[in-house]
Amino acid sequence: MTAEILSVGTELLLGNIVNTNARDLSVMLSELGINVYYHSVVGDNPERVRLAVEVSKKRADVLITTGGLGPTYDDLTKDVLASAFGKKLVYHEECAEDIRAYFAKRRRDCEVTENNYRQAYLPEGCTVFRNTCGTAPGCAFFADGIHIIMLPGPPHECVTMFKVSAAPYLRKFSDGRLYSHNIHIFGLGESATESKLHSLMVNLKNPTLAPYVGVGEVRLRLTAKARSEEEAESMMSPIIDEVRKTLGDVIYGVDIGTLENAVFTLLKEQHKTLSSAESCTGGLLAKRITDVSGASAVFRGGAVTYATDTKHGILGVSQELLDKQGAVCRETALQMAEGARQIFKSDISAAITGIAGPDSDGSGKPAGLVYVAIAADGNMYCRELFLGGDRDRVRVLAVNHALDMVRRYLAGLNILEGADHK
Amino acid sequence: MTAEILSVGTELLLGNIVNTNARDLSVMLSELGINVYYHSVVGDNPERVRLAVEVSKKRADVLITTGGLGPTYDDLTKDVLASAFGKKLVYHEECAEDIRAYFAKRRRDCEVTENNYRQAYLPEGCTVFRNTCGTAPGCAFFADGIHIIMLPGPPHECVTMFKVSAAPYLRKFSDGRLYSHNIHIFGLGESATESKLHSLMVNLKNPTLAPYVGVGEVRLRLTAKARSEEEAESMMSPIIDEVRKTLGDVIYGVDIGTLENAVFTLLKEQHKTLSSAESCTGGLLAKRITDVSGASAVFRGGAVTYATDTKHGILGVSQELLDKQGAVCRETALQMAEGARQIFKSDISAAITGIAGPDSDGSGKPAGLVYVAIAADGNMYCRELFLGGDRDRVRVLAVNHALDMVRRYLAGLNILEGADHK
Repeated sequence: MTAEILSVGTELLLGNIVNTNARDLSVMLSELGINVYYHSVVGDNPERVRLAVEVSKKRADVLITTGGLGPTYDDLTKDVLASAFGKKLVYHEECAEDIRAYFAKRRRDCEVTENNYRQAYLPEGCTVFRNTCGTAPGCAFFADGIHIIMLPGPPHECVTMFKVSAAPYLRKFSDGRLYSHNIHIFGLGESATESKLHSLMVNLKNPTLAPYVGVGEVRLRLTAKARSEEEAESMMSPIIDEVRKTLGDVIYGVDIGTLENAVFTLLKEQHKTLSSAESCTGGLLAKRITDVSGASAVFRGGAVTYATDTKHGILGVSQELLDKQGAVCRETALQMAEGARQIFKSDISAAITGIAGPDSDGSGKPAGLVYVAIAADGNMYCRELFLGGDRDRVRVLAVNHALDMVRRYLAGLNILEGADHK
Repeated sequence: MTAEILSVGTELLLGNIVNTNARDLSVMLSELGINVYYHSVVGDNPERVRLAVEVSKKRADVLITTGGLGPTYDDLTKDVLASAFGKKLVYHEECAEDIRAYFAKRRRDCEVTENNYRQAYLPEGCTVFRNTCGTAPGCAFFADGIHIIMLPGPPHECVTMFKVSAAPYLRKFSDGRLYSHNIHIFGLGESATESKLHSLMVNLKNPTLAPYVGVGEVRLRLTAKARSEEEAESMMSPIIDEVRKTLGDVIYGVDIGTLENAVFTLLKEQHKTLSSAESCTGGLLAKRITDVSGASAVFRGGAVTYATDTKHGILGVSQELLDKQGAVCRETALQMAEGARQIFKSDISAAITGIAGPDSDGSGKPAGLVYVAIAADGNMYCRELFLGGDRDRVRVLAVNHALDMVRRYLAGLNILEGADHK
């Protein structure tokens, strides 16, 4: 069973808003085991909506529209869809009731105007989807071999109505559903990941394995279509084992979301604490760790020593070292890490110093040169990195390296491996 | 001239990512005076991409594709488009050069593999768009009465290539164009902004004025269609004056982008330096300021004192105060600010302490309670905030308040105004 999402709204074509409805509906449809083959967006123009519907009719089993169900003159989805399938719009008294009740409860300041009642007209013979968060009802009907489902445009109303009404409607027609796992990788590029897993990716049909690229990260999504979770797991777990065997410890977790989550989990399990010392990343490492709710159990704090003299003043980096070798060098990174570990009284500390760019710092060292160090239990480690890309990318990647080093230390892995990942 | 955006990528149809490229390209096309009539999304399936192209060919003057230009087997946009328009893919040595240079600079760890060179093949006779942020080049060609433009999928590469290469290419074919200004507001909600400017927003036809909402921020976009920049400016400047007169000092800048840019500019003009002290925002304030390239001229550094005892240990907040009133109170925020100002030797310091949530800290104080303080030249100010929303929103809004206080201090405005903005 294949579906297509048609979003109606000029504000999408102007770029005023981003089409989160298409994303959210896609996720929910995929969970129902329904494949989404197309998204389309069209403006509030009856002729172009009609043409878009003509196109969709030929290629989908389910057409879901979003938007254009409101009370105003440019809300035209129902009119166009009804006419495209030769249906009349008929008055639904229970919808008019809902509209009156909504105004009585939430909009006591204004009367229900005539155009509000336009929303109570729906195609004859349809299944009515009542709107629990707004005034525009949605509906579903089957005609010319295709299921038509109309949902309102405001994201909260659209998503809620799908869950409450459209999903139960569709479940009757769908076989099996999709289950998935995400395998998270840091320290191996997309091409390299793919060349190692090429035959799996190409040959697997169910489950499927596909790569997605982030900043210096790769995520593998494994998706199985099955009749039960148990069946899906039994299909996926040998593949996960095979991927683990092939890629090794560049995998930082399965379904763990982010490197900071992986680090948080390890710290918590081992009752260890972390602190940070940052220069070019300006607080991003601390911010990322504290993005995790509950971080206060493992994160002591961090110093952003942006001006060179604060590296000496706050963290106790040797003034002689700073004078001679500058703020961006291996030894400074190591002393920053050890300094932060001491002033924040943490078990482990991670430090980052480098040149985020776009310009060099005048020392002759290139933008993108970054030193990432960790200090822990008397041990110290440092990666020297030459990172490419703009200021944002250099900063994000430097933080990823710091988190990866902490993860590797806690997991008892070779800490410097992955250091050549740029 | 009408355009259509065709995004290629199964990850969009699975709902793994939201289609920000379509939104961003739409905004930029509209600025070129080109109307966008359709967005479409299709998966990495050659037959369905071909069908989508067939549909687009009939209805658009410009077809812009995003995605599917990478090195892997599922990157098929070029093959399908070339074959749809009867063109051969030919090897472009300058693209191969770029790919080699990219690897030499950023990926010294790995060799350029054979599949990377697939990216150097482009339709014969096309205009090559070089990729300054990645390896996949884009291109443009005109065939069968339609302009075809292919851009890479990663948002940063897509948007940059549009600005650098596609916009100049399209400008040659477009008549009249749009000019715009953005008016940035912090401290006044969307409804309040809109009700104050209602008649302007409704009645203006050219230029137009429209609001966009961020986290606790509102941006007004003023857009004029004109034959020259001069003409556009003469249409827009009286409106900007009127908006300024109506809204007053909640406007933190025109075309300035972000609060951190506004703060950076004021600090630089006045030769003043800033430092930060953060608890619940965990480094986000320092990160935001150092997002600005050149921040080292004005930002000394910051302390992320996440564990309560580090507020005493690092910043010198009174232990008695922390014992009696806790980490989240007005006096702690003020002492954090003053402590940071002293250890970082800055002119001004901003401090944030609060409960980001989702849970309270066990003290009985509610999640969302945040104190933001600044210390400057012997003066101290504090806002007590009860912020709504999830952990992310509370953190972003708290940082916005800190930046707004610094801005108001530097601009000689009432610093505590806007404190009721939640």
